[in-house]
Amino acid sequence: MATEDVKLIGSWASVYVMRARIALHLKSISYEFLQETYGSKSELLLKSNPVHKKMPVLIHADKPVCESNIIVHYIDEAWNSSGPSILPSHPYDRAIARFWAAYIDDQWFISVRSILTAQGDEEKKAAIAQVEERTKLLEKAFNDCSQGKPFFNGDHIGYLDIALGSFLGWWRVVELDANHKFLDETKTPSLVKWAERFCDDPAVKPIMPEITKLAEFARKLFPKRQA
Amino acid sequence: MATEDVKLIGSWASVYVMRARIALHLKSISYEFLQETYGSKSELLLKSNPVHKKMPVLIHADKPVCESNIIVHYIDEAWNSSGPSILPSHPYDRAIARFWAAYIDDQWFISVRSILTAQGDEEKKAAIAQVEERTKLLEKAFNDCSQGKPFFNGDHIGYLDIALGSFLGWWRVVELDANHKFLDETKTPSLVKWAERFCDDPAVKPIMPEITKLAEFARKLFPKRQA
Repeated sequence: MATEDVKLIGSWASVYVMRARIALHLKSISYEFLQETYGSKSELLLKSNPVHKKMPVLIHADKPVCESNIIVHYIDEAWNSSGPSILPSHPYDRAIARFWAAYIDDQWFISVRSILTAQGDEEKKAAIAQVEERTKLLEKAFNDCSQGKPFFNGDHIGYLDIALGSFLGWWRVVELDANHKFLDETKTPSLVKWAERFCDDPAVKPIMPEITKLAEFARKLFPKRQA
Repeated sequence: MATEDVKLIGSWASVYVMRARIALHLKSISYEFLQETYGSKSELLLKSNPVHKKMPVLIHADKPVCESNIIVHYIDEAWNSSGPSILPSHPYDRAIARFWAAYIDDQWFISVRSILTAQGDEEKKAAIAQVEERTKLLEKAFNDCSQGKPFFNGDHIGYLDIALGSFLGWWRVVELDANHKFLDETKTPSLVKWAERFCDDPAVKPIMPEITKLAEFARKLFPKRQA
């Protein structure tokens, strides 16, 4: 295991922090995990990411790198000779992985989150329908990218696996809240199996949060919905 | 000049299409420019980018690549031995370039656009103040990245130069509309000189739209503001 000067500012419950952690685990990079407390921001976080003031921040040899997908790129490029390559090797496959990773953040996740913040049954129903539709696109993307292999990236976890897989814990919390299953043997058979493999991967298993703990945390984050 | 099978679906007035065109010019890739008509979408565009239905789409050997910054990455990686490298060579510099490129699209441009869509003087004044503040950050980013060299990327145009430089035409239109100068010798001396160099670069000059033509087009796009 590499023993470079690596710190990660983050929190156990954050999807975006999990991306950086999975990438570090895949590359066998040891790091100091500096946990933030929800509701406050440490001086180091504010100093390291003065523009967005958000975690995660990776600090490598005293230099900060911000934004989860940029951190994953950085880890892949800075430690390109350690462990498996996280981005696909062919430029076209890289473009496709980046395209779907951006889709997951900019479109798919927006609709997932809107289920938790929906006002009334109609709005919630519409949000659920949109997630269904967008998840179907991801099922197709999985079949196209994986080409019959276990992961989006082929034989091992890669960029797009991390981008979507980091949401799996929160997605399960949303499923429980909405009383609706999105990952389902009938609708998304490939993603169901992929999700199992992803959560069982040695780079993911130790850091994937327990659903009960995450659900409890979600109730604190979205207190209005308890009314 | 490379003579591969390259097509670009786009329009002369689009910032995002310009990014792909500058990258192709930097790499000396010849391409067929398939211009879309504003207000309608060609069958080829809808087929090539069924998810977002947006230009630009680069079609290389019949395979479509979508989203401007992803296209620029693709061009740099697929033609890595032609012309200068567009992304910086060091992983940390790449992370910084990606960070500011994302900032330009997700934050800076949002405030620039809000000047054109502001309702009333107060809203417009607030939008102008926000652009001022965010442009100051970009002035600092330029000084940090360029290290006294002519471009964000050093001696020649690179990823971050393309990300911001592609906005220069529209930015001038917004300046005229708001009757307010953002790029100014006193407030942003480095960016003023950078903008001149960028527009004079042989990869940019032939495709940077004329401001009068762009302003006329803007009046068609934002007709409500004429009322």
